[in-house]
Amino acid sequence: MDLFAPALYRHLDSWLDEDIGRGDLTGAALRNCHGSAYWVAKQAGIFCGGQLVERLFKRLDLAINVRLQVGEGKRVSVGQHILELEGPAAALVAGERTALNLAMRLSGIATATSTLVSELSGTSVRLADTRKTTPGLRTLEKYAFRCGGGINHRFGLDHAAMLKENHIAWAGGIEAAFAAVRKHAPWPSRIIVEAETPEQAEQAVRVGADGVLLDEMSYQVIQTLVPKLREIVQTGLSRGGSGQVFLEASGVDPRFIRAYASTGIDFISTSAPMTRSPWLDISMRFDNADA
Amino acid sequence: MDLFAPALYRHLDSWLDEDIGRGDLTGAALRNCHGSAYWVAKQAGIFCGGQLVERLFKRLDLAINVRLQVGEGKRVSVGQHILELEGPAAALVAGERTALNLAMRLSGIATATSTLVSELSGTSVRLADTRKTTPGLRTLEKYAFRCGGGINHRFGLDHAAMLKENHIAWAGGIEAAFAAVRKHAPWPSRIIVEAETPEQAEQAVRVGADGVLLDEMSYQVIQTLVPKLREIVQTGLSRGGSGQVFLEASGVDPRFIRAYASTGIDFISTSAPMTRSPWLDISMRFDNADA
Amino acid sequence: MDLFAPALYRHLDSWLDEDIGRGDLTGAALRNCHGSAYWVAKQAGIFCGGQLVERLFKRLDLAINVRLQVGEGKRVSVGQHILELEGPAAALVAGERTALNLAMRLSGIATATSTLVSELSGTSVRLADTRKTTPGLRTLEKYAFRCGGGINHRFGLDHAAMLKENHIAWAGGIEAAFAAVRKHAPWPSRIIVEAETPEQAEQAVRVGADGVLLDEMSYQVIQTLVPKLREIVQTGLSRGGSGQVFLEASGVDPRFIRAYASTGIDFISTSAPMTRSPWLDISMRFDNADA
Amino acid sequence: MDLFAPALYRHLDSWLDEDIGRGDLTGAALRNCHGSAYWVAKQAGIFCGGQLVERLFKRLDLAINVRLQVGEGKRVSVGQHILELEGPAAALVAGERTALNLAMRLSGIATATSTLVSELSGTSVRLADTRKTTPGLRTLEKYAFRCGGGINHRFGLDHAAMLKENHIAWAGGIEAAFAAVRKHAPWPSRIIVEAETPEQAEQAVRVGADGVLLDEMSYQVIQTLVPKLREIVQTGLSRGGSGQVFLEASGVDPRFIRAYASTGIDFISTSAPMTRSPWLDISMRFDNADA
Amino acid sequence: MDLFAPALYRHLDSWLDEDIGRGDLTGAALRNCHGSAYWVAKQAGIFCGGQLVERLFKRLDLAINVRLQVGEGKRVSVGQHILELEGPAAALVAGERTALNLAMRLSGIATATSTLVSELSGTSVRLADTRKTTPGLRTLEKYAFRCGGGINHRFGLDHAAMLKENHIAWAGGIEAAFAAVRKHAPWPSRIIVEAETPEQAEQAVRVGADGVLLDEMSYQVIQTLVPKLREIVQTGLSRGGSGQVFLEASGVDPRFIRAYASTGIDFISTSAPMTRSPWLDISMRFDNADA
Amino acid sequence: MDLFAPALYRHLDSWLDEDIGRGDLTGAALRNCHGSAYWVAKQAGIFCGGQLVERLFKRLDLAINVRLQVGEGKRVSVGQHILELEGPAAALVAGERTALNLAMRLSGIATATSTLVSELSGTSVRLADTRKTTPGLRTLEKYAFRCGGGINHRFGLDHAAMLKENHIAWAGGIEAAFAAVRKHAPWPSRIIVEAETPEQAEQAVRVGADGVLLDEMSYQVIQTLVPKLREIVQTGLSRGGSGQVFLEASGVDPRFIRAYASTGIDFISTSAPMTRSPWLDISMRFDNADA
Repeated sequence: MDLFAPALYRHLDSWLDEDIGRGDLTGAALRNCHGSAYWVAKQAGIFCGGQLVERLFKRLDLAINVRLQVGEGKRVSVGQHILELEGPAAALVAGERTALNLAMRLSGIATATSTLVSELSGTSVRLADTRKTTPGLRTLEKYAFRCGGGINHRFGLDHAAMLKENHIAWAGGIEAAFAAVRKHAPWPSRIIVEAETPEQAEQAVRVGADGVLLDEMSYQVIQTLVPKLREIVQTGLSRGGSGQVFLEASGVDPRFIRAYASTGIDFISTSAPMTRSPWLDISMRFDNADA
Repeated sequence: MDLFAPALYRHLDSWLDEDIGRGDLTGAALRNCHGSAYWVAKQAGIFCGGQLVERLFKRLDLAINVRLQVGEGKRVSVGQHILELEGPAAALVAGERTALNLAMRLSGIATATSTLVSELSGTSVRLADTRKTTPGLRTLEKYAFRCGGGINHRFGLDHAAMLKENHIAWAGGIEAAFAAVRKHAPWPSRIIVEAETPEQAEQAVRVGADGVLLDEMSYQVIQTLVPKLREIVQTGLSRGGSGQVFLEASGVDPRFIRAYASTGIDFISTSAPMTRSPWLDISMRFDNADA
Repeated sequence: MDLFAPALYRHLDSWLDEDIGRGDLTGAALRNCHGSAYWVAKQAGIFCGGQLVERLFKRLDLAINVRLQVGEGKRVSVGQHILELEGPAAALVAGERTALNLAMRLSGIATATSTLVSELSGTSVRLADTRKTTPGLRTLEKYAFRCGGGINHRFGLDHAAMLKENHIAWAGGIEAAFAAVRKHAPWPSRIIVEAETPEQAEQAVRVGADGVLLDEMSYQVIQTLVPKLREIVQTGLSRGGSGQVFLEASGVDPRFIRAYASTGIDFISTSAPMTRSPWLDISMRFDNADA
Repeated sequence: MDLFAPALYRHLDSWLDEDIGRGDLTGAALRNCHGSAYWVAKQAGIFCGGQLVERLFKRLDLAINVRLQVGEGKRVSVGQHILELEGPAAALVAGERTALNLAMRLSGIATATSTLVSELSGTSVRLADTRKTTPGLRTLEKYAFRCGGGINHRFGLDHAAMLKENHIAWAGGIEAAFAAVRKHAPWPSRIIVEAETPEQAEQAVRVGADGVLLDEMSYQVIQTLVPKLREIVQTGLSRGGSGQVFLEASGVDPRFIRAYASTGIDFISTSAPMTRSPWLDISMRFDNADA
Repeated sequence: MDLFAPALYRHLDSWLDEDIGRGDLTGAALRNCHGSAYWVAKQAGIFCGGQLVERLFKRLDLAINVRLQVGEGKRVSVGQHILELEGPAAALVAGERTALNLAMRLSGIATATSTLVSELSGTSVRLADTRKTTPGLRTLEKYAFRCGGGINHRFGLDHAAMLKENHIAWAGGIEAAFAAVRKHAPWPSRIIVEAETPEQAEQAVRVGADGVLLDEMSYQVIQTLVPKLREIVQTGLSRGGSGQVFLEASGVDPRFIRAYASTGIDFISTSAPMTRSPWLDISMRFDNADA
Repeated sequence: MDLFAPALYRHLDSWLDEDIGRGDLTGAALRNCHGSAYWVAKQAGIFCGGQLVERLFKRLDLAINVRLQVGEGKRVSVGQHILELEGPAAALVAGERTALNLAMRLSGIATATSTLVSELSGTSVRLADTRKTTPGLRTLEKYAFRCGGGINHRFGLDHAAMLKENHIAWAGGIEAAFAAVRKHAPWPSRIIVEAETPEQAEQAVRVGADGVLLDEMSYQVIQTLVPKLREIVQTGLSRGGSGQVFLEASGVDPRFIRAYASTGIDFISTSAPMTRSPWLDISMRFDNADA
């Protein structure tokens, strides 16, 4: 998440406009008041999005000041203050909901990711995300996943190639598919193969895949498979192979996550923090309203 | 959700571009193949977004045909086919993830809404949503909420006015706040007051609020309060009042939802389907890949 | 008109670009001069748009300073100074025409509205606008209408529902039409019925319309009709009706406006300030040019 | 107005979205009905915008068919049918107001222009417009001006250069200003000088202006001035001058327009059709609603 | 190139986003460092684009300061410092490539133009560009051409009219074509005719063309033709002609450019600086990297 | 270059609008004519962009038909016909220049690339591009480079990481820099190091770089260096290294390109086809104009 990317500002603007529409009707009650407010965690979890929130309010009014009290990706406890704001009341109120919606969603993802990551502690396996992200929010949701301790998988269809069953079928086999992609893809782009069976995985390694996704295989199967795949890579070296392959398990049953983690794979990928996590509950409270 | 609104197409385009980026690297394996595929439910739930999915694929290639097999807002069972697609393989693959992400998110909301709505069956109380929606998806998430049987609350800050504690404090009291908003708001816009206490609710009705949101009150308190508020409205009629007020409970503990539903209120509002529902699991399967 | 809405800035930018195109050819004569200028009213009327003008010039160059001398919606007399500007000459000249075009159009609307509103003085009837607005300028033209003392009708098709003859015909009657809309519309959205005859008006009130637009009826007809409609509302209360209906006359002959105003209706709606008002004549004069 | 310019479609889309917002709430009453409608003139005048209207409806739904019955720039009488439409009812209704607003505004301009142009009949003087146009509509309003028989002045600041009093003051005299602009402007761009006095006009011709705008001079003054200016041009030829100058009167009192037209000038420029013309009244009537 | 045109900022933003994409991956190494850098010419040539570069970096971070050391359109020698920058390292690095790409391209055009212009020194003939420009960069490339000492031809299809062979054929002859265009074009727009033969050139002058482009004719042919064309103009004056025609040669063999320049024409137009010039080589060097 | 990416259409539209502006003034001569035309190569070279050209014309008018006669990336000889078009004359003329500008630029790149690639024939070294591309055209220029037989380097800052001298300095050494980037980058993103000296190259391989760019080293130095680097990789395998490194030479003197190609490196990268290639000359000829 580059905070200086112009594309980010266009997104922030469009999200603000989505809520403001033709103008905040209730704003007429705020006259030209100046206000201050703070954010407080109503649930424990991992907070992220503070700098985004700051920029979002600045888009409405440069006179708004935001003081962050919790670092990106840091844990907050119930009742903990997250940030303080002050500025023109009308702009504070107009940005409130959009800012919270964004931060609550991202913090929810970071929190869920963190929980999963903690189950991998002590292993060298890293948790990776997928392309199952909310339309329009991919870069930010992937940022939140990193804040929770995970690592990102490819950003999109243009980042790395991934051969799936259907690509292989249409191309007429894994070798043809691999060759076609290798020929056109930028050289820094890795080529990954999604394998449904151990045989496909071995074949993938043989044709030179940079990564193999072992999809919906049991950890027992994977445990047997990994050494074989590593060996093919080593052997392949003498034939000009890459000497390296990243092995990733997907469709992992959360109950057996540690068992998977001990199979020798590099990554476990999961969409759960994006598709199944609740938002982290955060409130914005205005100081005057307490008086 | 007006399918003919040009704004919808701009959104569909930007979501497709988010995944496609500088081009689908794996597409090189697809040559000029033509393919067919279908969507299948991997979980039971309420499906919605079919027409959106159709339009999304048409944005990529007008030669793609989508045949919807499940109506909007209809229940699907595990294994049920949802829709069939056929067209140029490269475009089918390029749209797959974005289309699924959208439909899975919306169907997840519809499913969660439907569950809550069913708890209100037999009552005249309706379930309403809130402004807690994913940035960029408000109109579609609110559409999904309707597909699940709920009713929408205001679309945004410009749709209806809602006086909260801070507005009242800044304006110098509820009467001043109400008058300021009434003076500037379009006449069809209702003015709603969020009340934290029964006294505030009574005051809100007295100044002529079109709706009162009873926030985080117990159902026992509400049960006593509702008849009082209705009576103030009736009485107020003789003084030029509106003769009508919508009463809404928010912050309702789900365990007591039916108790709330029997208090005489009109709406129970909830953000849960947007902030706490998992996506409905749906797969896209290519026909050739089975062969 | 929320001055902090990002959408406003995009509009200001596109209007500036419309005039500037590939660059101000005459700007080459201005070198790096600094200039000052003022705006002067060449006609009496209601001025509005001052803050917009300030923001518009700031979009060109933050170094431009604008000092407003007339408040929004205030009356100006011939020769009165409206605002003063100073800053880089090239930017002042590049923004001059666009700024004037905007302010002259809006002030023309405010002036025409004010004249009509003054004819309603002493009555409780308010003047409302319509959806007849210049494409691209609706929010600002409606703001100008408010500056002139009027009140806004719905912002667009998504703000409130309005059943017209054709909706009723297609839906198969007013009850069916009303029910269909009620079922899908957000609860804060009012449902208005446009009635061509007294019978339709009565029917509209009976089905629970929040507002009835009495279209092109004589004031005599309306005078008789209003008490009947109010009575239906009162009676309806016992049957669960709303107890409230807003009555609006449209297609009013300006000569009889006060007669209409005494019929007991709430609003008279008119598109005249948008469709028939001349721009208010304003000039921008550069100080150096006088020397 | 090039109907194939992509920029036009972006404008049509944004105008449709302005009215449709988050969706036409009343559309729920229209189910999947198909409808037909026609446009009828409620005032006599010059119609224009038919092809725009067709494209605007096509942007909503390609299934809408529009049959134009009046050519661009042709006169319509009260009650005359202008065009017929048929297609999905929801899209017809959603586009109705935006289409009418556009065509009524443009036809109002064309009508007012036509009236002024008719006063110049029998002379070789042409009526030209100005840069006083509604922000966002310049190209289309200038098109309407042409439909009414006028000719366009420069499209914007980048089309031709126009030296005004302030440019000359800042540049340090007319010669310096002219030279600076001539040096940087594309060669096809004409340089016009706005003259406040006969002396300035003569000076402008001497430095080689392609056009001189005689601003707020009486027709008597102009009558004397024109032959002098033409002579300077002729004489100048021997010194490398252009041999051509366009003379234009602005700020013309409409009562004396024919007197101005007989002074030998080439153009009379006026902003009146843009700043003072009422919209041409047109209605859209649905066929089913008559049944 | 108006540096205050909002359209320019949208372009700068989109170019930055093109390189930054979903975020600078290498930026993680830069922590919160502050840096300084300078630009140095690796080739001699004409530099331009300095103010653009400044604005481009400011779009990323207002905290970046740029100090220009070479004026627009000035010659730089190998090793000469062009500008200095300092600011947040991450933003400096993120803008580096885009800024250089822009300035190197524009400076390459200015350099090539300057070389050609120098061949015309001592003559009154000016070098003009064409519409052969890189899509998306026309205004800036034409600005670079001016920086190199050239003059711009028309900006686009809407700036001046140019009748080519096919227009004349479709319209049914040069007179019909000329009349059709004259009738609809804004009066300040010149009408130019592209002539393939001397006969066409004479005809063009007779119908009143403001300019004639003598395409791919030898300088001998042009030398004979020019006096004839000038004479027709003079003669035409008595018949209401314009008294002026701009004569331009295109398709000129660079070896004979001075011969063409002595034929009496006004302009030689060339696309070579846009279609055949190499970029000017410039490097950005970070001060810390030298330490 | 995915022809179905919505982003492509927005680019095509903006390029068309750049030339069309407020409308093609000369189009008035074309009435409603229908025309046909063809493209002919005026130079030999590699043609590319045919499908883009087809889509570009379709954006103007779906009634235009384009028949491609030369495949993407195929060689054309002088006089060879490239494609045929037919459709409404006004749209053909309005798109002509933009389409040619695009195709000529891309074909020029493909042609220059092809020449360089042919110098590598018989070796396994591939020619790679850089991030020196025209702002706004990166994806298409990289596509052209592929059409010429080259392979693409990273698309942008978000595709792969590249540590340069300054990153290493700011991070406090190559190991720290590498670790920081590895921690945050998506796992499929490779990390490349730009080495100025053999020592840096060795260090880069030791920390685990996926690629090393050997910048401005002589081929003699590289010849000695490559085996060392390969050995470090092999050795590193036992310590958990990747077993693979891509070696790339940049800043290669074209005279010694084959010498570089025999050093054992994988890629030679060059910006020359983007920064120093002339456009391929192509003409569009209208059939009627020949008659």
